[in-house]
Amino acid sequence: MQELKDIIIKDSKAIGKNILKVDSFINHQIDTKLLDHIGAYLASKFPDATKVLTIEASGIAFGVAVASHLGFVPCVFAKKNTSKTLDEKNIYRTYVESFTHGNVNLVSVDKRFLTKDDKVLIIDDFLAEGNSALGLIDLCNQANALVLGVGIVVEKGFQKGRKRIEEAGYKVESAAIVGKIDNGKVILK
Amino acid sequence: MQELKDIIIKDSKAIGKNILKVDSFINHQIDTKLLDHIGAYLASKFPDATKVLTIEASGIAFGVAVASHLGFVPCVFAKKNTSKTLDEKNIYRTYVESFTHGNVNLVSVDKRFLTKDDKVLIIDDFLAEGNSALGLIDLCNQANALVLGVGIVVEKGFQKGRKRIEEAGYKVESAAIVGKIDNGKVILK
Repeated sequence: MQELKDIIIKDSKAIGKNILKVDSFINHQIDTKLLDHIGAYLASKFPDATKVLTIEASGIAFGVAVASHLGFVPCVFAKKNTSKTLDEKNIYRTYVESFTHGNVNLVSVDKRFLTKDDKVLIIDDFLAEGNSALGLIDLCNQANALVLGVGIVVEKGFQKGRKRIEEAGYKVESAAIVGKIDNGKVILK
Repeated sequence: MQELKDIIIKDSKAIGKNILKVDSFINHQIDTKLLDHIGAYLASKFPDATKVLTIEASGIAFGVAVASHLGFVPCVFAKKNTSKTLDEKNIYRTYVESFTHGNVNLVSVDKRFLTKDDKVLIIDDFLAEGNSALGLIDLCNQANALVLGVGIVVEKGFQKGRKRIEEAGYKVESAAIVGKIDNGKVILK
């Protein structure tokens, strides 16, 4: 998606060989017009989805943008911590390792919000090793929901996420793919 | 806002005297059409805002919906944890006690995303004791940004949030106000 590629080249900051900062338009300050366009783009790749599943926190904006462009289907976001208001007996749960934060989160979805009748599009802001997406696919499988595929805003094409998800049998669509991060320079695919 | 009031009466679940579960349409599964309408409603109350500030996680969907209806202004979400990609020297920070989770979070915004030129609308999904909103106001004050007011999806009218924010000198607008939660029953104002 050219608009996103242009903004990545203009406004992202590359650190070392692995870290791409996109906090001025994606995951701290959100460019809401770009968000809307990314929502339309990813929705167009999975027109049959009846539900969007994402993960808090920075997936939420993109999840609701895509869901809105799918005709206002529901957007469910998996929670990273249990709270007083989340009944532990009635949730699907899985463990997800965070590439950015270097920790493991217990991730859960209430069983009422993921069912065998759902055709699910999984949305996340970043794809690196694929742990979040594979965790969300695991939650869908526990619910016997149909996973139509995974939609990503920025894919790190030099990491194993796409390969792992495709080998598990699922389609991946990304709005932009970073081929390489090299000493402060971003090279897009 | 009548549409939200109707859905609260129909689909929320009251527990004891304090807890209102709205997880089927607000803070776990999001009704994206309702979200869009709430965005339009709260945006109409603060038409001069040039930036929306909210807090992760469940404020994000509403923050971007309101920002989109303000003519696609940027939406910044304050972060609850520092990460590898957030430079500690360059952030505004404050402490926010969570009513729901019973803990205290260090909340931060990168200094690049909150400046003296911003006219800020603060958005959150819930207003109880007002800790989140007052924390976000504190971040704006550190940045010398102008706070136009606070927009809330569901206000618990029987807690002190509105009073504390108004006494601090800021306008509060809520899409729905819960007057009382009484043994499983929700009474709206």
